[in-house]
Amino acid sequence: MKEFTIRPNPADPRLTERVVGTNEEGREVAISVPTERPLTLYLNKREIVTMMTIGDYPEYLALGYLLNQNMLKAGDPVDGIDYDADIETVVVRTPTTTNFETKLRKKTLTSGCAQGTAFGDMMETFDASRLSAEARLKTSWLYTLSRKINAVPSLYLEAGAIHGCVLCEEDRPLVYMEDVGRHNAIDKIAGWMAMNGVTGSGKIFYTTGRLTSEMVIKTVQMGVPILISRSGCTAWGVDLARKAGLTMIGRAKGKRFIVLSGGERLIYDADARTVAEEAKHLRRKGAEDAA
Amino acid sequence: MKEFTIRPNPADPRLTERVVGTNEEGREVAISVPTERPLTLYLNKREIVTMMTIGDYPEYLALGYLLNQNMLKAGDPVDGIDYDADIETVVVRTPTTTNFETKLRKKTLTSGCAQGTAFGDMMETFDASRLSAEARLKTSWLYTLSRKINAVPSLYLEAGAIHGCVLCEEDRPLVYMEDVGRHNAIDKIAGWMAMNGVTGSGKIFYTTGRLTSEMVIKTVQMGVPILISRSGCTAWGVDLARKAGLTMIGRAKGKRFIVLSGGERLIYDADARTVAEEAKHLRRKGAEDAA
Repeated sequence: MKEFTIRPNPADPRLTERVVGTNEEGREVAISVPTERPLTLYLNKREIVTMMTIGDYPEYLALGYLLNQNMLKAGDPVDGIDYDADIETVVVRTPTTTNFETKLRKKTLTSGCAQGTAFGDMMETFDASRLSAEARLKTSWLYTLSRKINAVPSLYLEAGAIHGCVLCEEDRPLVYMEDVGRHNAIDKIAGWMAMNGVTGSGKIFYTTGRLTSEMVIKTVQMGVPILISRSGCTAWGVDLARKAGLTMIGRAKGKRFIVLSGGERLIYDADARTVAEEAKHLRRKGAEDAA
Repeated sequence: MKEFTIRPNPADPRLTERVVGTNEEGREVAISVPTERPLTLYLNKREIVTMMTIGDYPEYLALGYLLNQNMLKAGDPVDGIDYDADIETVVVRTPTTTNFETKLRKKTLTSGCAQGTAFGDMMETFDASRLSAEARLKTSWLYTLSRKINAVPSLYLEAGAIHGCVLCEEDRPLVYMEDVGRHNAIDKIAGWMAMNGVTGSGKIFYTTGRLTSEMVIKTVQMGVPILISRSGCTAWGVDLARKAGLTMIGRAKGKRFIVLSGGERLIYDADARTVAEEAKHLRRKGAEDAA
């Protein structure tokens, strides 16, 4: 697969807006900000969730969300995915009622919450997940990936206030998705993988966001054995990564990183002392913009 | 009310953990990371949501969540809030079945999602909200608030990967909450305000997180007329702030800021040129850690 098969498109006028404000000196200034719009997801006739999203790739987002929440299983047949921009909905249709819908029908009589059900289900299958022991990550790939990802034009560099997630192989970034919604970027990649028959085996995830429990669970669900983030992590994220045998690397910036789990997959082939600190113009601007 | 009536407690052993990893030179290093645990919220007998939280102030979080989602109305009587650490649940009890539960019972027959209902309700009441036109923000307060908030010991400075939200009045930070969950910090403040009879009138919110639609909606719901963030914003966040007459300021770091809405409440009493850039040791470390 070629590098940046999907990459951010900061020139797409639907994805950013110019807004005019006043700065600290009282001067008018215009800045670019990412769009954010609601998208209500249905699984057949059932309303699942309203997501806040930048709005690109709604079909991938819908499918990836259902897969990552275990509402659909990998390989479940899907008849179609219908996106309607006017009423801001996306409907995923399956030939027969899914197990999830049946389960939910019972559950709503007592509790009513699709999200709670999904969370329970995720934790159930999480333990059963298996990641390839053969996968490797060379530190030279890690540095190359960081450099390539941070240099490519993105909505983050253009407008800030956005999360990025990149599916990679060795030192090549393949699919780079961004979104204002916390987990939408990774869900869009999951949807893209499912629709293109790409598995997580031998792949690497790079994300700008924090390594929380949910990020770890999703990565493991997708069968990706290696997860890298520029940001920090939570204790539970580390704990889950260790249980699942996921290789997890946090605070990867410039030459620095910390391996928190699965260090046996790492090959130290680069001399960290020779890696340059990030050039200022390549450093992700307004770092806290995505906080 | 005195400054920092509630402030972060980085010394609380329940809130951070030391984890050992390996750095870029292959050396073992220990870092502090915030805890993250699930907390399932019930409104009477109904399961509402499972939140990922750092775990402090579960009662404030529960009540604030329900209020900010319009599942409870301000002034609705509450019989009690029962937190059970062992089974990670918190139950908010009301003397009679709430309107929300009745509405949800009808809705689950067709759709089943508490979150969707709440979102619709939020947008309904959003337009009806009114913020005090008399509120003012002096730029000298803004600079003082930033300085005080960033200098006080916090989990962010200790462990990163966390969001902060501070309820302020003039140049005084009053209640400073942090959480790993995106909106938990502001919900905990909402719960604290409700339980202490404090209204949003004349108050200021300072947050480290992005100004998305949901942050703006919650601030307006809580009756707080002024919202300041170190981070960026989304287009919809700006749009909603303008509709609601909220004063919204983004990218407030060092001497810089940008007013995106409600600039008429701002009084330029500080000379930005005389404000020092943030000292490096006071700058929020690992900025992207909370991304």
